[in-house]
Amino acid sequence: MAILVTGADGYIGWPVMLKLSREFPDERIVGVDNFGRRRWVEEIGSVSALPIVSMEERLEVARETGSSNLSFIEGDLSDRAFVQQLYATFRPRVVLHLAAQPSAPYSEINGERANYTQENNTASTRNLLWGLKENNLLESVFVETTTTGVYGQPDIDIPEGYLEVERNGKRGTVIYPGMAGSWYHMSKCHDVNNLWLANRQWKLSVIDLRTAITYGTTTEETQADPRLATRFDFDFYFGVVVNRFAAQALAGYPITVYGKGGLKRPMIGLQDAVDSIVAAARREPDQKFEIFNQTSGPVGIQEIADGIQSIGAEMGIPVQVDHLPNPRVEKEEHQMVMENTRFMTELLPHPTIDINDGLRDTLQNLLPYRDTLLAYKDRFIPEQLLKREPVAG
Amino acid sequence: MAILVTGADGYIGWPVMLKLSREFPDERIVGVDNFGRRRWVEEIGSVSALPIVSMEERLEVARETGSSNLSFIEGDLSDRAFVQQLYATFRPRVVLHLAAQPSAPYSEINGERANYTQENNTASTRNLLWGLKENNLLESVFVETTTTGVYGQPDIDIPEGYLEVERNGKRGTVIYPGMAGSWYHMSKCHDVNNLWLANRQWKLSVIDLRTAITYGTTTEETQADPRLATRFDFDFYFGVVVNRFAAQALAGYPITVYGKGGLKRPMIGLQDAVDSIVAAARREPDQKFEIFNQTSGPVGIQEIADGIQSIGAEMGIPVQVDHLPNPRVEKEEHQMVMENTRFMTELLPHPTIDINDGLRDTLQNLLPYRDTLLAYKDRFIPEQLLKREPVAG
Repeated sequence: MAILVTGADGYIGWPVMLKLSREFPDERIVGVDNFGRRRWVEEIGSVSALPIVSMEERLEVARETGSSNLSFIEGDLSDRAFVQQLYATFRPRVVLHLAAQPSAPYSEINGERANYTQENNTASTRNLLWGLKENNLLESVFVETTTTGVYGQPDIDIPEGYLEVERNGKRGTVIYPGMAGSWYHMSKCHDVNNLWLANRQWKLSVIDLRTAITYGTTTEETQADPRLATRFDFDFYFGVVVNRFAAQALAGYPITVYGKGGLKRPMIGLQDAVDSIVAAARREPDQKFEIFNQTSGPVGIQEIADGIQSIGAEMGIPVQVDHLPNPRVEKEEHQMVMENTRFMTELLPHPTIDINDGLRDTLQNLLPYRDTLLAYKDRFIPEQLLKREPVAG
Repeated sequence: MAILVTGADGYIGWPVMLKLSREFPDERIVGVDNFGRRRWVEEIGSVSALPIVSMEERLEVARETGSSNLSFIEGDLSDRAFVQQLYATFRPRVVLHLAAQPSAPYSEINGERANYTQENNTASTRNLLWGLKENNLLESVFVETTTTGVYGQPDIDIPEGYLEVERNGKRGTVIYPGMAGSWYHMSKCHDVNNLWLANRQWKLSVIDLRTAITYGTTTEETQADPRLATRFDFDFYFGVVVNRFAAQALAGYPITVYGKGGLKRPMIGLQDAVDSIVAAARREPDQKFEIFNQTSGPVGIQEIADGIQSIGAEMGIPVQVDHLPNPRVEKEEHQMVMENTRFMTELLPHPTIDINDGLRDTLQNLLPYRDTLLAYKDRFIPEQLLKREPVAG
C-alpha cells in the first residue's frame, strides 16, 4: 500500500510527509515534487527564512530519526507520461495532491505567468485524475488542497462547498460556483470543476480541502532536527499575510496592512493543516465529492498586526504598523462568514493552535534568522506599492 | 475598425464571417483559424457531408460575391505570441471567440485528448483575454460562444447565467456553477470562470453566449454559391444529434436514439445562431458580464426522430428509429427548463427557423450527398456501442 504526496517539498507537503511516515508506518509514503517552489521564489529574488536542506538530506535525516518508509521521486505532474509511470509503479490507495503554483500575485505578473499558473495547476490535477482512471485505481481516495479563495466575497454566508437553491418552486443542491479573485485562485476553481466531474463520471472518491491562509513555522515532526525544517516564505509573492507580517516585524520594517485592515480572513495553523490532511488520508473511499473548509476560523488582519506588535513588545522588539492602499480587487470591509463545522468535526476534532500562540512561536522561531529577513526586506512589497502614499489607518 | 472572428473556418464561424461582411461593410472582418476542426474530423476518419473548399477559395468566392472586407490569418490561439501579434496588428473593437475543440466524446477518448481539449480551449481564451489587457484593448467587447452544457442537469429551472440565493437570512446573486457532464463541456466552465474574472478585474465587457445544439445546413449567405457552403458533420464525435439523425436517415441507416429519447434539449437553428452572434457584435461596451442562453427553445429527441421519419416519408425515404443504451452519464427523463427570455428579446427578436422547417431543409440539402453519407456510415456510432443490445423504445 502507498500514499502519494504531491508537492512533497512544499511548506505543507514536507511536514505532511513526516507525519504520514509516523502515522502509517506500514505503508510506503511516496513524495513527488519538481522543486518548482524553490525556483519560483529564487526567480522573484527571495529565499526561505528558515534554511532548508536538499530533499536528499531531508530524507537522510528523516530516516535517521525513524522514518524508514519515505520515498521521493522528482518529476513534473504536468507531464502525463510521468504521472502514468508513477501510478503504474506505486498504485497509491490515497493521493494527497498538494502541488501547485500557489501565488496570486505571481500569477498576475503578466499573461505568460497567468498561463503558466493555470496550465501547470490544472494539467497536474487532470493528469492525476485521468491517471487513476487509466490505471484502474478508481478505488483510491483523491484529496486535493484547493483554497478558501474559490468562494470569492459573496454577500451570503459561505457554506462548505454546496448551495441549496430554490427557483420557481423547485429546490435543488448545486456546487458553490467559482468566484475567485485572482488567476491563481481561479486555477483552483477549474480544478474544482474537474474534481466534480471525475466524481460524477467515475464515482471517484474526492476530498476537496479548501485550505485557508496557513501560518506558522514548525510542526511536531519538523522540530526533531533543524534539517527537517519546512520552508518559510515572507516575500510579497509567496509569503502569506501572517508569515509576512511576522517577518516584517523582526526585520524592523513596518507591518504593511493593506487598506484599513478591517478584513477578516479564514486561517489555519500549519500543525492543524497538516493534522487534518493526515486525517483525510485515513478516510475510506465513499464515492462522494466531499468538500471541507480547512480553517479553524476567521482572524482579522488588524488583529494579527496588533498581536505581533504586542508579542514584539514582550520580546523587546518595537513593531510599527502601516497602512498601504490595497493592491487587490476586494471589498474592504467584507466580513467573510465561512462555515467549517464539518471540517472541525470530521477532520480537526483537536485543534492545537490559537492565533496568538502561533504568532509567538513564529516570531521566536524566526528570531535566529533576522539577518536573512534584513537582507531580503526589499522583497516584502513590490516596487509599485512603495511609491504610493500611505492611507489613513 | 475591425471585428475578429476566431474559429472562422468552423460550422458557425464561416457563416458568421459572411454575414458580418454584409452587415458591417465599413469594418475589416478578420478571421482566424488553425484548421483544427478539419484535422480532428479527418483523424477520427470522417468528413464534412457538404463539400467545403479551402479557405483561400472561400475568400475568393466571397470577394466575387461582394464581400471585399474579409481577411484571414492562419494561426493557433493557444500560442500567446500569435495572439499578441494579432491584436497589435488589427486592434479589434469586437472579438467573437468561436474557436474550440467542441466534441465531448472526442475529449473523452482518453486522458491525452481530455488534456488537449481543455488546454487548447482554455489557453486560447486566456490568451485572447490577457491580450486585450496587454494591448490596451479593454474597451473592446469580448463575445464567446460557450455552451448550454455548462449548466448540467440540475433539479431547478436553469436561469440565464446567474442564481439568486438566500442563506441564513442574507440574499445574494452568484454566478451559476460549472456542472458540465464532459471534459469538453467542462473546458467551457473553466472559460466561464476566466471570463467572470476578466470582467471583474479589468471591467472588460463580456458577452457569454451559451450556445445550444446548433442544427441545419445553410444560411442566407452560404447559399449564394456552393463554394460558400459551411461544413456539416454527421459522425459520432462531431455531428450534433439533429444533424447526425438527418444524415443517418438519408444513409438508410436507423436513427439511433440514446435511451428512450425522453430528453428535451435546448436547440437553435444555424441561421438563428449566426444572426444572434452578429447581433452581439453590434452591442456597445458596458463593462458587464452578460450571459445569454443562445437557444430558441427545447426540442425532444424523440420529436426530432419522428419529424425526420415523417419528412422522410414525404420524400419517399423510409426511416427506421432505433434505441441504444445511452453512453453518457445523464438523467434519462430530465426535462431541462432553460430560460431564454433575455436572449430572445435582446439578440434574436426575429427567429427564422422552426425545427420542422429546419429538418426539411437539412434533409433536402443533404440529399445530393447521400453517397458521402453511405461511404462514412460506420462513423455514426463508435464500435463499442454497436456491440451492445438495443433497448426497448
